[in-house]
Amino acid sequence: MGSTMKKKIEVGILGATGMVGQQFIAQLESHPWFSVKWLGASERSSGRRYMDAVKWRLPSQLPERISEMTVTNVEPTSAPKILFSGLDASVAGVVEEALAVSGHTVVSNARNHRMDAVVPLIVPEINSEHLDLLEAQTRIKGWRGNIVTNPNCSAVILAMALAPLRQFGLKSVLVTTLQAVSGAGYPGVSSIDILGNIIPIVAGEEEKIETETKKVLGCMRDESIKPYEFEISAHTTRVPVTNGHTEMISVLLESKPTRNEIISAFGNFTSQPYKQECPSAPKQPIVYLDEDNRPQPRLDLDRERGMCVSIGALRHCSVLGHKFVALGHNTIRGAAGTAVLNAELMYVKGLLN
Amino acid sequence: MGSTMKKKIEVGILGATGMVGQQFIAQLESHPWFSVKWLGASERSSGRRYMDAVKWRLPSQLPERISEMTVTNVEPTSAPKILFSGLDASVAGVVEEALAVSGHTVVSNARNHRMDAVVPLIVPEINSEHLDLLEAQTRIKGWRGNIVTNPNCSAVILAMALAPLRQFGLKSVLVTTLQAVSGAGYPGVSSIDILGNIIPIVAGEEEKIETETKKVLGCMRDESIKPYEFEISAHTTRVPVTNGHTEMISVLLESKPTRNEIISAFGNFTSQPYKQECPSAPKQPIVYLDEDNRPQPRLDLDRERGMCVSIGALRHCSVLGHKFVALGHNTIRGAAGTAVLNAELMYVKGLLN
Amino acid sequence: MGSTMKKKIEVGILGATGMVGQQFIAQLESHPWFSVKWLGASERSSGRRYMDAVKWRLPSQLPERISEMTVTNVEPTSAPKILFSGLDASVAGVVEEALAVSGHTVVSNARNHRMDAVVPLIVPEINSEHLDLLEAQTRIKGWRGNIVTNPNCSAVILAMALAPLRQFGLKSVLVTTLQAVSGAGYPGVSSIDILGNIIPIVAGEEEKIETETKKVLGCMRDESIKPYEFEISAHTTRVPVTNGHTEMISVLLESKPTRNEIISAFGNFTSQPYKQECPSAPKQPIVYLDEDNRPQPRLDLDRERGMCVSIGALRHCSVLGHKFVALGHNTIRGAAGTAVLNAELMYVKGLLN
Amino acid sequence: MGSTMKKKIEVGILGATGMVGQQFIAQLESHPWFSVKWLGASERSSGRRYMDAVKWRLPSQLPERISEMTVTNVEPTSAPKILFSGLDASVAGVVEEALAVSGHTVVSNARNHRMDAVVPLIVPEINSEHLDLLEAQTRIKGWRGNIVTNPNCSAVILAMALAPLRQFGLKSVLVTTLQAVSGAGYPGVSSIDILGNIIPIVAGEEEKIETETKKVLGCMRDESIKPYEFEISAHTTRVPVTNGHTEMISVLLESKPTRNEIISAFGNFTSQPYKQECPSAPKQPIVYLDEDNRPQPRLDLDRERGMCVSIGALRHCSVLGHKFVALGHNTIRGAAGTAVLNAELMYVKGLLN
Repeated sequence: MGSTMKKKIEVGILGATGMVGQQFIAQLESHPWFSVKWLGASERSSGRRYMDAVKWRLPSQLPERISEMTVTNVEPTSAPKILFSGLDASVAGVVEEALAVSGHTVVSNARNHRMDAVVPLIVPEINSEHLDLLEAQTRIKGWRGNIVTNPNCSAVILAMALAPLRQFGLKSVLVTTLQAVSGAGYPGVSSIDILGNIIPIVAGEEEKIETETKKVLGCMRDESIKPYEFEISAHTTRVPVTNGHTEMISVLLESKPTRNEIISAFGNFTSQPYKQECPSAPKQPIVYLDEDNRPQPRLDLDRERGMCVSIGALRHCSVLGHKFVALGHNTIRGAAGTAVLNAELMYVKGLLN
Repeated sequence: MGSTMKKKIEVGILGATGMVGQQFIAQLESHPWFSVKWLGASERSSGRRYMDAVKWRLPSQLPERISEMTVTNVEPTSAPKILFSGLDASVAGVVEEALAVSGHTVVSNARNHRMDAVVPLIVPEINSEHLDLLEAQTRIKGWRGNIVTNPNCSAVILAMALAPLRQFGLKSVLVTTLQAVSGAGYPGVSSIDILGNIIPIVAGEEEKIETETKKVLGCMRDESIKPYEFEISAHTTRVPVTNGHTEMISVLLESKPTRNEIISAFGNFTSQPYKQECPSAPKQPIVYLDEDNRPQPRLDLDRERGMCVSIGALRHCSVLGHKFVALGHNTIRGAAGTAVLNAELMYVKGLLN
Repeated sequence: MGSTMKKKIEVGILGATGMVGQQFIAQLESHPWFSVKWLGASERSSGRRYMDAVKWRLPSQLPERISEMTVTNVEPTSAPKILFSGLDASVAGVVEEALAVSGHTVVSNARNHRMDAVVPLIVPEINSEHLDLLEAQTRIKGWRGNIVTNPNCSAVILAMALAPLRQFGLKSVLVTTLQAVSGAGYPGVSSIDILGNIIPIVAGEEEKIETETKKVLGCMRDESIKPYEFEISAHTTRVPVTNGHTEMISVLLESKPTRNEIISAFGNFTSQPYKQECPSAPKQPIVYLDEDNRPQPRLDLDRERGMCVSIGALRHCSVLGHKFVALGHNTIRGAAGTAVLNAELMYVKGLLN
Repeated sequence: MGSTMKKKIEVGILGATGMVGQQFIAQLESHPWFSVKWLGASERSSGRRYMDAVKWRLPSQLPERISEMTVTNVEPTSAPKILFSGLDASVAGVVEEALAVSGHTVVSNARNHRMDAVVPLIVPEINSEHLDLLEAQTRIKGWRGNIVTNPNCSAVILAMALAPLRQFGLKSVLVTTLQAVSGAGYPGVSSIDILGNIIPIVAGEEEKIETETKKVLGCMRDESIKPYEFEISAHTTRVPVTNGHTEMISVLLESKPTRNEIISAFGNFTSQPYKQECPSAPKQPIVYLDEDNRPQPRLDLDRERGMCVSIGALRHCSVLGHKFVALGHNTIRGAAGTAVLNAELMYVKGLLN
C-alpha cells in the first residue's frame, strides 16, 4: 500500500509540547502515510518555534524539520483535517468537541470522550469493528467531523492481555498495576515522591481501567457498544520505573482451558491491522515468554518497537484459577502508538477522507 | 519487668555476618533483657574479629563492643543457650536441628523448619498460643532444646494485615507484593536487574506466603496447628526499593462488615506482648492511615521503630468485596524484629529457662 | 544551660509549608530552648490549619501540636521576634528585610541576603565571630532587627571540609558535587529527569559554592568580612539520591602536610558550639572514615543526627596534591540544622534578647 | 567496501557468557564484515547451548542463530583466527597470551595487557597509528599472533574528550567520573549498595584512567609509545545509572583558546575510520550540545548507536581555566563498540590476514 501512495496525508498534533504530543512526533517522524504539518499548543507557546516552545524529554532526537516549525494556538481554522490529540484532560473535552463540530477527525489519547456512548474506544487488534459507531456519532452528535479515542495506558495493556481469553469466557479479573512515571506526564511525579519508593493508588486510574476495559472488549450491537460483562477490580501503584507498565493479573474463566491452551491463545492472537499493512501494527501483538521472571521492563519493553504486549509466568491461582504477568510500553502501546495505529486503521477503512 | 532484672540473658547469633545477622545485632544492641555474647558464622569467618569478618551494610553504626568480638564457627559447645538464627536456608536445616538436639533454644528466621508440624511459627501479636506446641516438639522430636520460627517477611506483613479480619470470616485473599531488595540478602539482587526495573515472581515466595499465612492464622488444637482454611493466592514482585514491602490486598469476607467496621478492626487490634511489656512490641501493631496514597515506604516505614504494619486505601473491590494496601518493614517487622519479639514473648512465658 | 531555662523562647517559621519549613519544624520539635508558636506562609495557606495547608513530605511524623496550628500570612505584626526563614528566594529578599526593619531577628536559609556585606553568613563551627558584623548591620542598615544567614547546602558541606585545612594554607580547590534531589525542594526535580539519570550543572549553584565558601572561611576585620582568597571551582550535578550531597574535592595547600597530618586536622576539628552546649551542635563536626569506599549517603548520612560531615578516601592528587570525598546531609547540616544551630549560637552569645 | 566483500570473516568471542561477551554478540550480530562462529567460555559452560549457558542481560534480543551455538572451552585449537576477548581480568592475562602465541589475533577489552610496552592500546579515532607497534610486538614477544587492546571504559570517554584539545597543549586534567553500574559486569554492584546511593572510588579505576589516557594520547616513536605528558588526576564514583558514564572535566591548556575555538575543536574532530567506511565508526565521534544541563545519560546516550561522545556545558574554571561535561556509552563506546571498531580498523589496514 505504502508504495502506491502518491502523497502523504497532512496531520496536526494537539498539545504538541506535552509528553504525549512529543511521543506523537516521535511516532510520526518518517511515517510512510502521515506527515506532521501543524503543531497546536496553548497560547503561551503559540507563535514560537517548536524547539523554543518545547522541553523535549525523549531520548530520541527532536526531528530537525519539526524543531523549526511554528507552534499555533489551538484554533480549528488553520489545522489539517486529521488531528492527533495529546491534550490535557483539563482542556481536551471542549477543544476536541469544537474541532469535531467544525469538521476535523480527532484521534485522541485524552480521557474526556472515551466513555461517550457514540465515541469509539479502539485498540485496533481487539475491536476495530467499533469504528462503525462513527455513523451513529455523526447522526446523533451532528458533528461534521469525528472523535475516535484509545484507552488509558493501563487499560490498553490489560485489554490486550485479556482479549485472547474471551474465547474461554471471562468471569472475573483482578489486576495490580506497577506503573511507570512517564504515564503521569511532565513534570508529573516529583522525584522526592518516587525515588526508592512506591506510591499506591494512581488517582482516578482504577475506575478508568475497570470501565474502559469492558468497553474495549465489548461488542457492537444496534449502533451501540455493549460492554463485556465481567467482574473487574484494579489495584494501581506508581513505581520508580521510567517506561513500562507491569500488570499482575488473576483471571477466572468460564471454560476450563489448560495452561497450554491459554499460552496458545496468547500466541495465536493475530493482528488484523498487520495483515492490512498498517505500518505501526506489530507482527506479533502478544508474545508469551517462557523464561523465568519475565516479562521485565528493562528487557522486554522494546519488542515490536514498543507495540507488543509481553506476557509470562502463567501459573495456577488458588483464588481465581489462573494468574500471569503482562507488560507493555505505556507511552507507545499505551498511548501514542495505539492512537497512530487507530488512524492507520481508519485510513485502511476509508474513514480519513 | 525490666527494672527488676538483675542480669541480662546471654544470647548468640547464628549467621552473624549475613544481612539478617546484622539486623539481629542492630535490634539487640542496647536491648534491656538480652545481651549478645556470641557470634557464629561459617568457617571462613571463624576466628576473625567481627569487624574484619563482616561487610556491615546497615545505616546504623556497627556497635563498638560487637565489632571487637571474635566470630566462632557454628559449633554447639560454646554457644549460649539462646540463639537467634539468621542462617541461610542452605545450612539452617541441619545446623539448627543439631543445636536443638544439644539443648539450645533456636529462635530462627530461616525457612527450613517453619512448616514442621511441631515447630511453632509465631507472630506474637497473632498466635502466641502456638508456643504451646513446644511440649509436643519436645516429646515427639526428643530434642533437649527447641526451635521456634517466624514467617517469611511478606507473610508476616500479610498475616498482620489479615489477623484483625478473622472476626469477619476470611474466605479468599488475593495479594500482590512489591518487595524491597533487602529481602534478598547481600549481595542479593544485582543492580543491573533492578535499577529502573521490576522483576516479577520472587522464586519460592508465593508458596511460602500462601502456606505460612494459613499456619500463623490457624488455631492450636490437640497439640497441633489447624491452618486457617481460606483461599489465598499471591503475586510477587521485586521493586527498586531498599526497605519496605508493599502489599496490595483484596479480601472476601463471610460477614458483611462496613468500611468503618473494618477500619475499627485494624485500629483495635491490640498487642498482648505490648501489655506484657515486651520491649520490642509496638504499642500499635497496626495503624490505619486516612491520607491519600498511603502507606508508602518512604513515609511510613519507621513507625514504632519499624514494628508497625501500616494500612491504607480501604475501598470496594468489585471482585472480592474489599481491597486495601499494607506496608511493613521487611527486615525488622518481617524478620529480625519479629524474631526478637518472639524471644521476648518466650521469656515472659517462662520458656527461656 | 537547658536545665536552668525557665521558659522556652517562642519562635516562628517563615515559609512553613515548604520543604525547608517542614525541616525546621522537624528540627525544632522537642527543642529544649525554642518553641514554635507561629507558622507563616503565603496567602493561599493563610487561615488554614497547618495539616490542611501542608503536603508533609518528611519520613518523621508531623508533630500533632503543629498540625493543629493555624497558618498565618507573612505579616510582621503577629509574629514572634525570632523567625526562621525557609522562604523561597523569589520572596525572601523583600519579606525578610521588612521583618528586620520592624524588629525581628530573621535566621534565614534563603540565598537573598547571604552576600550582603553586613549580613553574617554563618556556619557556627567555622566563623561564629562573624556575628560581630551585626553591629555594623544595625548601624548601616538602620534596621531594628537583624538578618543572619547560613550558606547554600553544598557550600556548608564544602566549607566544613575545608575549614580544618586553613592551617595548611588553602591555595586551590576543585570540587564536583553529586547533589540529592531534596536540595531542589518540592516538587523540585521531575522523576522523569532523574530516574536512572544524571543532570549536570545545578543552575546557579556553582557560583554560590564559589563565593559563599570564601566568605564563610574569611575573617572579620574592621567591621567587614575579608573573604579567604583562594582559587575555587565547582562542578555540580544532580543525582538520583534522596538525601545527602557527596563532594569529590581536590585541594592545593601551601604547606606540605602529610596524609596523617591532614587526617588529624579533620579529626581534631572541634566544635565551639558543642562546648557551649548548643543542643544541635554535633560532638564531632567532622569524622574521617578509614574504610574503603566511604563516605556513602546510605551508610553515613545520619551520624550526629545529620549534623556531621563525613570525610574519607584521602589520597594523592596528581594535579593539586590531595583529594578526598566529603558527605553531608543537605537538608539538615546544609540547611535547617545549621540555621537552628545559628540561632542557638546567637542565644548563647546573648544576641536573641 | 562492504559491497565487494565476498565472504564474512569468521570470528570468535572469548568470555562469551559475560556482560562484555554479550555486548560483543549484540555488536557483531548483522555485522557486514564479521560473523561470529565460535563462543568460548569457562569449563562450566563448555558443551552447553549458548542459550542455556548464558544469563542474557541485554534489552536487545539474543540472536536466534547465536542462541543455538554450542559454547566451547577456551582452547586455542578450534577457535577462529580473530578473537574478541571479553574475558575477566582474572584469566585474561594467561589465556590471551597463549592464544597470541599460537597465532590468534586477540582484540581484547581486558585490562591485563593494556600497558604492555608492545601492545597497542587503541581508540581508532585517536591513535590508529599505534597499530604499527604490532611489528615490535611480533619481534619482541615472538608470538605468531597478536594482542590489541582498547582502554578502560572511563578512559576511552576521557581520551575522546581530550584528543581534540591536544592542539592547544594539555597541561593538567582533573576529572570526576559518575559511572554506570553496567561497567562492573554482572552481577557486579549489589542493589543494596547503589539504590539511592553513591559509592565513591571505583577500585583500581583511578589509576587506569590516569595511565591509559596518557598512553592513548601519546605518540609512536622508535617502535614504542611515548605517553603524552600532562598532569592527570581522577576521582571516580559509582552512581545509580544503568548505562552511561558522565565525566566532569577541568583542563589547563598551554595556549589560550577562546570558548568558541574549543567548541570548534570538538565539532571538527573527524573520524578517519568513518572515512575508511568502518561500519562501527560514528560519523561524528564528538558532538557538542548547546542546550542547558547536557549531556545526560537518559537523553544523549544513543547518538551514533552509542559510539559518540557527547560534550556540553563548556565554561570557565577558576582553577584550571576550562571545564565541561562529557558522556559516553560505557559498554559500547567504552568497551565492545571500540573493540569491534579496532578490529575493523585492523581489517582496513590489512592486519587481519
